Amino acid sequence: MKQLLFGVFENAQSNDSGTATWRHPDNERIHFDSLEYWVNIAKICETGGIDWLFLADAWGWSEIDDVRPAICDVEALDLPRLDPSIVIAALLQSTKRLGLVITGSTLVEAPYSFVRRMATLDHLSKGRIGWNIVTTGTADTAADAFGQARVEHDERYKMAEDFIELSYKLFEGAWQPDAVERDRLGRYSDPEKVHRVFHEGPFFKCDGYGNSHYSPQGTPVLFQAGSSPRGLQFAGKHGECIFVSGDDTSIVAEQTRKIRAEAVLNGRDPYKDIKVICAFSCVVGDTKHQAYEKHQEILKHQNLDVAAASYAMFTGLDLSKYEPETKIKDLKTELSKTQILRFGDASVGEVLGNWHANGVRPEPFIGTPEQISDAMSYMAKAADLDGFMFTPMSQPSSTIDFVSKVLPIMRGNQVNTPNSKIQLLRQKLMGSLLPYLAESHPGASYRHLKSKNLK
Amino acid sequence: MKQLLFGVFENAQSNDSGTATWRHPDNERIHFDSLEYWVNIAKICETGGIDWLFLADAWGWSEIDDVRPAICDVEALDLPRLDPSIVIAALLQSTKRLGLVITGSTLVEAPYSFVRRMATLDHLSKGRIGWNIVTTGTADTAADAFGQARVEHDERYKMAEDFIELSYKLFEGAWQPDAVERDRLGRYSDPEKVHRVFHEGPFFKCDGYGNSHYSPQGTPVLFQAGSSPRGLQFAGKHGECIFVSGDDTSIVAEQTRKIRAEAVLNGRDPYKDIKVICAFSCVVGDTKHQAYEKHQEILKHQNLDVAAASYAMFTGLDLSKYEPETKIKDLKTELSKTQILRFGDASVGEVLGNWHANGVRPEPFIGTPEQISDAMSYMAKAADLDGFMFTPMSQPSSTIDFVSKVLPIMRGNQVNTPNSKIQLLRQKLMGSLLPYLAESHPGASYRHLKSKNLK
Repeated sequence: MKQLLFGVFENAQSNDSGTATWRHPDNERIHFDSLEYWVNIAKICETGGIDWLFLADAWGWSEIDDVRPAICDVEALDLPRLDPSIVIAALLQSTKRLGLVITGSTLVEAPYSFVRRMATLDHLSKGRIGWNIVTTGTADTAADAFGQARVEHDERYKMAEDFIELSYKLFEGAWQPDAVERDRLGRYSDPEKVHRVFHEGPFFKCDGYGNSHYSPQGTPVLFQAGSSPRGLQFAGKHGECIFVSGDDTSIVAEQTRKIRAEAVLNGRDPYKDIKVICAFSCVVGDTKHQAYEKHQEILKHQNLDVAAASYAMFTGLDLSKYEPETKIKDLKTELSKTQILRFGDASVGEVLGNWHANGVRPEPFIGTPEQISDAMSYMAKAADLDGFMFTPMSQPSSTIDFVSKVLPIMRGNQVNTPNSKIQLLRQKLMGSLLPYLAESHPGASYRHLKSKNLK
Repeated sequence: MKQLLFGVFENAQSNDSGTATWRHPDNERIHFDSLEYWVNIAKICETGGIDWLFLADAWGWSEIDDVRPAICDVEALDLPRLDPSIVIAALLQSTKRLGLVITGSTLVEAPYSFVRRMATLDHLSKGRIGWNIVTTGTADTAADAFGQARVEHDERYKMAEDFIELSYKLFEGAWQPDAVERDRLGRYSDPEKVHRVFHEGPFFKCDGYGNSHYSPQGTPVLFQAGSSPRGLQFAGKHGECIFVSGDDTSIVAEQTRKIRAEAVLNGRDPYKDIKVICAFSCVVGDTKHQAYEKHQEILKHQNLDVAAASYAMFTGLDLSKYEPETKIKDLKTELSKTQILRFGDASVGEVLGNWHANGVRPEPFIGTPEQISDAMSYMAKAADLDGFMFTPMSQPSSTIDFVSKVLPIMRGNQVNTPNSKIQLLRQKLMGSLLPYLAESHPGASYRHLKSKNLK
């Protein structure tokens, strides 16, 4: 059986994923603003054999009728939050092999400075960086905060296409991989291998030299999620590690099929060039019953009133205004469509109940380490997955449970798997010989080009 | 005598300050893209009793007649360079008391995201962050790279005023210092103490909540340089640590007087509320002659042809086009005026010669540790200075020389000075009881206010 990949989901705020589990006494993430918290998490991941630590991000907040409900502050639903690129940079010294993935928004970042930031991380980490490309779910409040015009859902994907094209030019084309020679008796860089970038897109423009030279991976490993038709297209074209999610194996299998098909349409190998990663959560016990009680204990610490505000953060929709029997699929949003589509045929009442327990997470696996491992192995096979990303309910206890009890079983009790020795993230995840974007990836076409071709 | 403050100037690129000393065999900064280089520098500074490590930054590059000369790549004059905020974040783990100062440009950053980045650093460092506010010297090429319109010199200061006003609202006003309670049985934050920020400035707009809660210092310590009349006004109003520079004590003394006067005009105490810091460099030897030879050896490794391109980077002016006897003060630029004003009555030929040796640096002190210490002590007194920032010629050897040989003499051979035990940067530098902006500072007026006052 293929070696599955494993990531851990994190977030530089007290809660994540639309739930508010901060009151649970085990949950140390209430101290997300301390370096000690993060160093501890990173070390648990690295020594536990996790392939990457993932930091989600957002800029906006929950609003209902243009007002942020007071409960959002009381329950730390969205704010305060910190900058994930700084958190990740602060972890470079205490990690050597762990992949570090940062969420970067194509709605509010400037590509020219964003590329320098990512390249800096890739240089200093010696090639361990991934970029989770998001068009920003909380797009309306984020746009207001940045003083920008609001951008509708499909238009945000056009913006993302423009952003990423300029990023490829800067990551891949501006400096050839061997441009820097550092020869004290010769040259620092070869002027013939440093190219001026020109870009005149519908959203972004650039005329100039890239600030940073070619980093160990060139372009960071590209992560993407998104289950709307437009999101799937984008992922199939640009994504290397692509997230899927769902309570039902058949739904996840369907998403996986669509993504692999989309990759093929883009001339990419549906297995070699993309990895499909499923979000999951789990609650581990000595018996199934004990695990179930542990889960109930976690849920008990969550305020019921937070669910409607939290769902509104992701979708802009106030479910408390609809009849409970309304079908969720009949509602429309210009924010994230993922959180409507995933509930299929469910009613508003069902969605609110599910959301209270799980937020954006799928239903957790609950049971003994063996039961969880079996269920995950079955799902990986049935849904044709390449790996999983763990969303902890309480940090660091959930992650410790997973890496110490479930992961060793899934890896056949091998602590030192082949993957755990590889340091460059793309080689580890994609199994590629070289750490660069595959030749079939659209970003690769910008590599090694003279400036005139970069127009 | 008052306790002088000492910083070390650095730069996430191979060269700095307009010189190209990378060929010198001692100069390890050619590896500025490796974490090991930076950890070593930070440890030398922290154990040596340096108060802050300063990272300069730029976005643009040298152009002569709209073309970047090939020598810039050969000599690594400007590019490649990395993001200083990431470098500084990567040093948080290996430092405990060292202040960390980052350059942030009001021309190309978005205030809303920049504030979150700085607040994240201030949280994770437990209050050791400073922000060197720049309007960007290499403004024209930087604007082109970002696809923005070019902005003229004085207009860039209007932009900086707008940027910093919004920054104060976000740093000081958005979250009251005691808004976060983290009480598992009560509230995470008090909604009454989290305020919506409104800003409608000529350059920047914002309608929303600050992403990050109040950090240990609220606003990072504000560093500023700038010797144009507009720059001095800005520094006298907003700066806390303000840089001066010059070869001649009387010139430096005059700058210091102007800055203190400007502070008084803004209702600030010219000593308690601002610290004037002088840039300097030194070459240390066992005898004056040996130090002189060491200096010549460093200069010998620098390509003569780089001087004109380098001067153009800071000013946009190609001095090779002017008659050598032309007075420098007769030339005009919309880039940095500092590098014209500092040369007073000198000719173009004299400036080119001086620039080759020093770039933007003043003439170094050259001699034995005692001679250098005496000269600096004299200058500090005569020019009414509060401290110095050391610009090394070769890293880390220059800094090791300074901290191990000169600094102990200047501090009366006390390794553990009162300052070295203070951890929060503002208290260390300003000698203040609290780590926040002084009440007389314009930023303090945005503190603890209700959202309606923030408009």
